[in-house]
Formats: sequence, structure tokens, C-alpha cells
Amino acid sequence: MGPGPSDVSERVLKALSQPTIGHLDPSFITLMNDIKSLLQYAFQTKNELTIPVSAPGSSGMETCFMNLVEPGDKVLVCINGVFGMRMREVATRAGAQVEALEFEWGEAVDPNAVISALAKNPDINMLAFVHAETSTGVCSDTKTLCQIARSHSCLSIVDAVTSLGGSELKVDEWGVDAIYSGTQKCLSCIPGLSPVSFSPKAVEKIKNRQGKSFSWFLDLNLVMDYWGEGAKRTYHHTAPVNSLYALHEALRILKEEGLEAACARHVLHHKALVAGLEALGIKMLVSEAIRLPQLNTVGIPDGIDDAEVRSSLLKDYDLEIGAGLGKFAGKAWRIGLMGNACNKKNVTYCIASLGAVLNQQGHSCDVEQALKLTEQAYQA
Amino acid sequence: MGPGPSDVSERVLKALSQPTIGHLDPSFITLMNDIKSLLQYAFQTKNELTIPVSAPGSSGMETCFMNLVEPGDKVLVCINGVFGMRMREVATRAGAQVEALEFEWGEAVDPNAVISALAKNPDINMLAFVHAETSTGVCSDTKTLCQIARSHSCLSIVDAVTSLGGSELKVDEWGVDAIYSGTQKCLSCIPGLSPVSFSPKAVEKIKNRQGKSFSWFLDLNLVMDYWGEGAKRTYHHTAPVNSLYALHEALRILKEEGLEAACARHVLHHKALVAGLEALGIKMLVSEAIRLPQLNTVGIPDGIDDAEVRSSLLKDYDLEIGAGLGKFAGKAWRIGLMGNACNKKNVTYCIASLGAVLNQQGHSCDVEQALKLTEQAYQA
Repeated sequence: MGPGPSDVSERVLKALSQPTIGHLDPSFITLMNDIKSLLQYAFQTKNELTIPVSAPGSSGMETCFMNLVEPGDKVLVCINGVFGMRMREVATRAGAQVEALEFEWGEAVDPNAVISALAKNPDINMLAFVHAETSTGVCSDTKTLCQIARSHSCLSIVDAVTSLGGSELKVDEWGVDAIYSGTQKCLSCIPGLSPVSFSPKAVEKIKNRQGKSFSWFLDLNLVMDYWGEGAKRTYHHTAPVNSLYALHEALRILKEEGLEAACARHVLHHKALVAGLEALGIKMLVSEAIRLPQLNTVGIPDGIDDAEVRSSLLKDYDLEIGAGLGKFAGKAWRIGLMGNACNKKNVTYCIASLGAVLNQQGHSCDVEQALKLTEQAYQA
Repeated sequence: MGPGPSDVSERVLKALSQPTIGHLDPSFITLMNDIKSLLQYAFQTKNELTIPVSAPGSSGMETCFMNLVEPGDKVLVCINGVFGMRMREVATRAGAQVEALEFEWGEAVDPNAVISALAKNPDINMLAFVHAETSTGVCSDTKTLCQIARSHSCLSIVDAVTSLGGSELKVDEWGVDAIYSGTQKCLSCIPGLSPVSFSPKAVEKIKNRQGKSFSWFLDLNLVMDYWGEGAKRTYHHTAPVNSLYALHEALRILKEEGLEAACARHVLHHKALVAGLEALGIKMLVSEAIRLPQLNTVGIPDGIDDAEVRSSLLKDYDLEIGAGLGKFAGKAWRIGLMGNACNKKNVTYCIASLGAVLNQQGHSCDVEQALKLTEQAYQA
């Protein structure tokens, strides 16, 4: 129950450990096609360029900037946590002129501030922001932000590492141009792959680049020849075959449940968790309207030792919760309810064991009452 | 029996599918330390910066160039196949001035040609070449080439994707400065990771860079804070936890057998395979002195359809052999004997089934006699 990797199901682990076949084997090509359609479903898009990058989420971020940014491009990066900061860094290294728009940690990206910044800088041609900020547990209004980008002739670049499969996300309807995610959050697949999707407009920019991307490994003009439609399937790099078996299975599980049901499940258990946490005297750090159900950022009670509690939970209860990152380090815990790990058993177990550890550490709380209120939230 | 991914053993697949834990979990940190020492054994090095990059072999190549190349650096890239060509491309994108030294396909890198090229270009400060060229099956004299690099004050960058665990490779003794490999060849681990190692001299250059690397994801100055010694273990990106379980097990298997024994095994089965192939009337394309035992490049007999034979082997015999790459496309097959796949059963099965398919396709050959000569090679 940390901020990811989340619990991987037996089905996904079983798929993962099937015998390795060649990355150009006809059966594997069929699997690649299946993965593409399942990813299109997960992202709610018809984008042809919807594929898993063969490396973790950060490389998906890098794929977006390394391919879209050309000399002279100016990117407005919205920063409300660690991953917005990372976007600024990656965009800068890719050669972009970066304009940063900073927000308080724990707050969402403010669309009005974005409108003002774009009005002041009419030569900005890309808008980058994080849908679900994993460092703070905040959800930003991606639909509105993408509309703003379009109306200012900007391409939108969206970090959906923690949102894919856990929060509403409609790439085509919202007009997202480039988006990347990770497999180890709400998809509950193993870490190491980064699903990405690019709109036809983004693909056009990539295909018409004047110069080559700095990265050969992430160069989509080459990767498209391997992952693209038709019989070409030109060898680029050796695909991570077994990890892709696992992703295929994780996406099938998501489709079986259905996106809407998966999102509703995340909200249900999140509400019960919050009821229990608050009953333990723990404060939610993010206001209700912009909270991510899959990542709950809570304040560490006064006088309680951050590391001792997490270490006791891990050692005595086999339960992982996440430390605070960046400005929240030592001040917050991040409790994940992602994908396969988002269930009633985990919620109840978390309240019971966190309550017990807090009592041991001198933060007096009524665990029985907290469990009762958790259960009531489920009945509501 | 293609050019990789090779057959992954049950032990490695079982390790791969253990439950996913956090990338900052204390147990995982212990595993990371074990992987580092096992990699140091495999590379025969004491280099502290010896780690697996969280992406396939090509990203290991990119890690070397993206971190070592700074503006003004001049790299001599030796090209005797596809992966030398790729080095030229990756080095160029990383900002190097590249001097290419080309050799015939199927030939090794000629040390004398390298000496001449370095003498003509005294401002070259890096020498890059492929130890085991996967596209041609040729082994180049890495020890001599690294000595030449040192005596010209050049850093050496070596591609060991296909050699690690299959051919003699002594990073410290030979004076290699930067080296990358893949997990899906002679280590017989799943594809998706790239072991790398850097000498103290290479690390010094990286630590003293004037500007940042284009790639944030591959930036070793950041990655070192996660993989480095001591208690820091700063989060950089989410490590591919399960793939690292698998690498750990694959390296343990290598250490159990011992490097020398593993290399000797590759030679033994290679000789038997060659005896059988030649008896089938198939010609080895690489001269004996520079042949890689783990990757056998053979000529496609006249009048025989490349794709039909490979497809029939795959469909009717469940056996993969590799197509020719680059200049060898349509002219050669590449038969792998890598790691776990390098055994007598595979050698015998390959001779029997390839012989049968060739007979079907009109290339008359005596399979019984070929199997007899294969067996004789084992007795020799």
C-alpha cells in the first residue's frame, strides 16, 4: 500500500513467467497487437501510436519530450509536486525553453493561472502537466487544461503514471496530445514499462522533425517501425518479452472489470480508508475535491517518528506505506490503494495495523472505533 | 536458438514471478547489493559502478555515450556489423564528433587499422567497438584494442551484449573503461535489462561533466545515488523489481557453473554444431579464429528460401533460428547457442530438424551422417 509498485496478482505473475519467445516471433507479434488495442481501451483513444515503452515511467516522460521538443520549442511546465519538477528537468535537457508555473504542494494546477501564463507568453507551443501527482496525491483537471492548450495552439503533454486505470482519463474526448503512464500503479503490473499514446497532431510533429531526437532508444520514428501496423515489424531493440506478457494480462483484467467499475472501486475503498484514518486522528493533506482515491497523502501526527512507524508496519505487519517525497519528506505518508491492492481487506488491515503501531508509538487512538467507522463507510 | 532472447531456465522464470516488493524495501536493497557483486564477478571487475540499467541492451549503449560524451569529444567507432553502426548513430546523437572505421562484414576489428586511425587523429579521446558482433558472429580482440586505447589516452567503450557469460571477458585485466551488455543472451535471463560497468577513470569523467547529459533517465550521476554504496539509496526511477529478481538468479547460475566452465561449454557445443552443419553442406561464414561459439553465422545454401526454412523450423519443429541482419539479410542464418540454450540436446535437435527441412526444400543432405559427425565431435 505504498505509492507503487502495487500488489501484482497471481494471474499477472503467472503470465509473466511463461517461456520467453523471440521478439519477432509471429505469436509475439499477435500479442503486441492485442496489447495495443487493450492500451487504446485503457487510454480511451483511437490513437494508432499507443504502445508500451520498454522501460519505466520516467522513460515514458523522456519519450514525450525527446520526440516532441525541437530547437526553439517553448514549453510551459506546471509544477505542483516532484513529477512536475521532473518534467521541467527532462524538457530542459531535451532542448526546450521551459517556462515553469509553480503551485503549492497539495494544490491542483490552476487553469486560470495557465491561461494567464499562456497569454503572457504567446510563443509557448506546448503545455505539460501531471494529471495525478504521485508525490502529493492531487488530481488536476486534465480535461480543462487540454482545452486551454488547444485554444492556445499548444500540444498537451500529460503525466498519467498514477491515474491510468484508477481515475477517469479520456485521451480522445479530452484532447490529450501526448501521454505517458507506468505499469506498476493502478494497472498492478510489474514495474518496468511505460504505456504512451500520441495524437495524430503529435505524431505529425514527430514525423516532420528537422533534426533527430537525442535518444536513439526512445526515437519514435524508429520504434514505430517495430510497433506500427502492417507487416514491417523492423527490429529496433529487443522487446522485454516477459514483461509484455504481464502487461497483456494486467490489461485484460482491467478490461474484464471495465474502466468505470475500476474507477468506482477506487473511490469506494478510498472513502472507507479516509473514514478510518480520520477516526485514528490522522489528517488528510489534500482537500476532498482534488484528492486522488488511489493515493492518500496524510499528515504524520505530531511527535510521531516517520521512519519508525513505516519500519514497524513493514517488519511487524508486512505492510508497506510510502514516505513523503520532496517538500513532504518527513511530514507526510502516502497510502496507496492501487489496482489489485485496492480492496476491503487491505483497507481494514491498514486501519488496524496503523492504529496498533500509532498506539505503540504514543499516539493514542481507538482502533475499534476506527474499524467501525470504516465499515460504516462501506455501508453508506 | 536464435540470436537472443535465449531460453530462460525454470529457475529464472520462478525467481521472476516472486511477489513484487517496493524498490526501496530493505530486502530489495540487499538484493541490489548481491546483484552488483554478481555482476562484478561476471564482468571480472572491481568497478564500483557496475549495475543493471533498467532497460534493454541498446539503452546500455546509450548510457555509455550519453554519460561519457561532452561537447568537443571525438570518438573513433569501429564498424564491422549492425551494432557498430548503431554505436556511430548513438554517439553522434549524444553530441560526439564521430570518426568511423569500417571493416568488412564477417571480419574482426583490425588493431593495426585502429592504431593508424588514432595516429592520424590525435584529438580522438574515445575508442568504441563491439566485442561480440551479434549481426555477424565475429569476436574482436578486446584486450588488444583496449591496450591501444590506453596507450593513446582514449577511454574504451565496449559492446559486450552477446559476449558476457559466453566468451572470455576480463574488464579489469584488459583495461575496459565502459562496457554494456544484455541479459537475454548468454546470461539466459529475460530481455529488458542492460548490465554496465565503468572504470574509475570513466566515472571521474562522468562526475566532472561540465553540462548535464541529455537523458535524465540514464544520467549516472543520478542513478549512482540509487545504486551506489552506503545508505543514501535516493529514489530516482522505479526499478524493474521482478526483472531484477530474474537477473539475480541468472547470475547465481553463472557463478555456480563458473565463468571458465561456461565459456568452455559454449566452445564444446559450438564445435559439435559446426561439425554437424558442415556435414549438412552448410558453410560457416566466419573464419575459425574469430568465430563466436555462442552465435554461428552460416550461409543459406543456394536455391533455398530463407523465410520458408525458418518458418518451417518454427512451425513444424518449434525451433527458432535467426535471420541475417543488415548486409547479411537473406544471405545468412544466425544460430544461437547461448547460455541455457547451449546444450547437446539443442545441438542434436538443430542438426536433425534443419537437415529434415533442408531435404524437404530440395537441398539434399545426409542427416544421419551429420548426426554421427556431431556425436564424434563430442567424443573428440
